[in-house]
Amino acid sequence: MTTLLALYRRPEGGDEALATFRRRYRDEHLALVAATPGLRAMRVRQVAEALGTETDLILATTMEFDDRAALDEGLRSDAMLAAGRNLREIGPGLATLLVLEDAPDLEPSR
Amino acid sequence: MTTLLALYRRPEGGDEALATFRRRYRDEHLALVAATPGLRAMRVRQVAEALGTETDLILATTMEFDDRAALDEGLRSDAMLAAGRNLREIGPGLATLLVLEDAPDLEPSR
Repeated sequence: MTTLLALYRRPEGGDEALATFRRRYRDEHLALVAATPGLRAMRVRQVAEALGTETDLILATTMEFDDRAALDEGLRSDAMLAAGRNLREIGPGLATLLVLEDAPDLEPSR
Repeated sequence: MTTLLALYRRPEGGDEALATFRRRYRDEHLALVAATPGLRAMRVRQVAEALGTETDLILATTMEFDDRAALDEGLRSDAMLAAGRNLREIGPGLATLLVLEDAPDLEPSR
């Protein structure tokens, strides 16, 4: 599996800007992402707290694909291109997109 | 479910420091974390790439607990306290620990 992890920072503009971003993220962005070919699962979680530090992160969304090739094909799809355009509209500069791969040499020994 | 997401930055010191951190993370740290009471699942993934930006993040580990109370109890356990001490030794300041909760109002509509 290859995972796309999207981390979102809090928008400028206080609680109202945050509420607007969350609403548009749900109503506009997620529907576009959900239509991505090859997307096996998606999970949206909110940051409740950072332990021992401050954070400006508010959301962490994981999107699962069979492998890197499937992710790359998904990224080139009309759905994902539209999702990218949408994100630049509703929250420019707020997201960090990380491609995560399994780390076989780091499997916990239990 | 409540998820603890640990994001790790690249240590100073180039490839040798990175290899040492990964080795000690696997051999010392993961075994301690794996013994945490209430831990339902753990997944270690490496950052293959950041899309459209640079990143200093190298690893993303998720640890799943039944709920926030179970996570808090796990955090207070001997295993997790030892894991925290170990992390301050093998990679001081490298980790960001985020508590993630489901976001029912952000469920994708598909």
